[in-house]
Amino acid sequence: MTETADERIEVDYRISAGDPGEVAHSIRVEQTIEFPFDLAPEWIQQQVVGRIESSHDQQVTISYDQGVTGGGITQLLNVLWGNVSLFPGVRITDLRLPDSYLANFRGPRFGVPGLRELLGIPNDPLICTAVKPMGTSSQELGKMAATIAAAGFHIIKDDHGLADQPWARWTERVRVIAEHIDEANSKAGTNALYMPSLNVPADRITDAAHEAKSVGARALLVLPGVSGFDAMRTLADDDSLALPIMAHPSFLGSNVVNSEQGIDHGVLFGTLMRLAGADISIFPNYGGRFSFSPEECMRIKTKCHAPLGNIVASWPSPGGGMTLDRLPELTDFYGSDVALLVGGALHRGDLATNAAAMVQALTNR
Amino acid sequence: MTETADERIEVDYRISAGDPGEVAHSIRVEQTIEFPFDLAPEWIQQQVVGRIESSHDQQVTISYDQGVTGGGITQLLNVLWGNVSLFPGVRITDLRLPDSYLANFRGPRFGVPGLRELLGIPNDPLICTAVKPMGTSSQELGKMAATIAAAGFHIIKDDHGLADQPWARWTERVRVIAEHIDEANSKAGTNALYMPSLNVPADRITDAAHEAKSVGARALLVLPGVSGFDAMRTLADDDSLALPIMAHPSFLGSNVVNSEQGIDHGVLFGTLMRLAGADISIFPNYGGRFSFSPEECMRIKTKCHAPLGNIVASWPSPGGGMTLDRLPELTDFYGSDVALLVGGALHRGDLATNAAAMVQALTNR
Repeated sequence: MTETADERIEVDYRISAGDPGEVAHSIRVEQTIEFPFDLAPEWIQQQVVGRIESSHDQQVTISYDQGVTGGGITQLLNVLWGNVSLFPGVRITDLRLPDSYLANFRGPRFGVPGLRELLGIPNDPLICTAVKPMGTSSQELGKMAATIAAAGFHIIKDDHGLADQPWARWTERVRVIAEHIDEANSKAGTNALYMPSLNVPADRITDAAHEAKSVGARALLVLPGVSGFDAMRTLADDDSLALPIMAHPSFLGSNVVNSEQGIDHGVLFGTLMRLAGADISIFPNYGGRFSFSPEECMRIKTKCHAPLGNIVASWPSPGGGMTLDRLPELTDFYGSDVALLVGGALHRGDLATNAAAMVQALTNR
Repeated sequence: MTETADERIEVDYRISAGDPGEVAHSIRVEQTIEFPFDLAPEWIQQQVVGRIESSHDQQVTISYDQGVTGGGITQLLNVLWGNVSLFPGVRITDLRLPDSYLANFRGPRFGVPGLRELLGIPNDPLICTAVKPMGTSSQELGKMAATIAAAGFHIIKDDHGLADQPWARWTERVRVIAEHIDEANSKAGTNALYMPSLNVPADRITDAAHEAKSVGARALLVLPGVSGFDAMRTLADDDSLALPIMAHPSFLGSNVVNSEQGIDHGVLFGTLMRLAGADISIFPNYGGRFSFSPEECMRIKTKCHAPLGNIVASWPSPGGGMTLDRLPELTDFYGSDVALLVGGALHRGDLATNAAAMVQALTNR
């Protein structure tokens, strides 16, 4: 366990409650040994406890030996945001993982290059939507999906809240929608991927993913805040599935929306989602129904695309109250390596017309 | 899908940002159909979308049809705190689940009555600790555990951050500690339960639980904020395991520590942990290393013990920087149905002496 300094995991924190120096010492102990520092053997104090690398005003950097995170993403999440998540006034502002550590992770199976190849779109943004609203029957959702597929959308997902409701049971819905999209693709010469929501019990999620694939789903939607980041990683790493994965931010919001506490938007929705295998990472776009600022959205995009060992770039996927007239603004803002997610707005007026307009606006620009 | 009004799920929110009436309308739509309300069919507007039951100043109650949560705890979590977790200034202050809904959940297998019977302690608090610090070898952790077991502790858990570090690999550590505790129990006539941390990859967690049981572990520690609430429920419901489960709050803190945003302490660490099968729910005690107030801790205790259909009461487990001299205060505050978790403080001075003193202070009072 000898390492050079550049092989340590580095976490930047902003500490806005209490004395930053004292809180930083608490964090480096709390996130590792959780034990009175003075009672720990000297080698544990030096090697296992985190090390304060720098401290300026509220901004502190602590580094951790890779061994502390032994066990995979679950323990990495615990070191990053386990007990310290219970500290008011502490926010992770950045995270640097050494290449020797990143080599333990496959990351997204497809990411930006893989999905461009799979879908045959060398330059354009990914065009995505969800079928909804909850309450609609499987057949009606299927017809809706067929209309959208025929218009040339790349990804048609279940609304993430579609689980196993009485109005459209999971097994029936996934089969029916997959069939409709497959038929529409055949007729129209399109290539839409159907992405069912794996919002299912934990002991069903692997089987449900395989069942979805067996009936024709060609991608998967996962809720890592509900199902666990490592459940998503397991699906991403499954060679017998080998399907693109989109991550939904359900249940994760409190980690980012309180500006003095939590985790940087880019670290959570960019870095950690990539580590856990998300090819596409959904987040609420600025100016929609939610509260993210343009700067926070840009931070997510940056972390989706930033170098991360040999892990491929992922697709930032802004959504949440997006409208068709904002498409030019959004491609200006995010560039082309973006998965644009338009939902309810497609249904205001004629669905086929709106879907065709969106595809036209975003194709071969 | 006809229901009487008292069979709906009711959620209380405090809305401190924006106009409460407008935000409440957004929530009832966002947490169900995520679709322009005016475009939804009338029956979906009435039955699927949440219903505002009352609204006074910032306090709003919204009820949901049980069908909306179809699919189990994962979708319940999504309805409660999926997209709305991304809203600043919204906090869930209470949750009422009808008995007809609760009948879908087993909850804790043991809870307060079951662990009292299993351990043969009709009246006293549960006495718990963790072996640590990280960096210690399996053999040394085993010896420490044996000393504590011989003193009469009820539960000896792995520190939750013990995963699969190079200093004590998971498989070796669990076997060695289990053996030491078993031997100490035999010699001393004690009955300590060893509880390894299931801080392991998602695709290993079920096998790891069974492996732990096969080598002598008699309880399990789970991190639902990392592994997912429903992964814990799966373990709790596994009749071939049938082991008590303690839940650790790792990664969940941001949901509670920001007073204007998030989820009520009692709802998260009491109600939701019980629904997901936690016999014991750890949280940071007031006056320790963390920030919870006495009122927030009392709220957790109340929700651990409150009526919840046929689901048994769970053990609130205050921990985090607790010291031996606080034991009388804590049993006064929490009563006897509490699992007291003392960690590092046991090691200041002689471990055997401290452990014996703690047992004596809490037994047959």
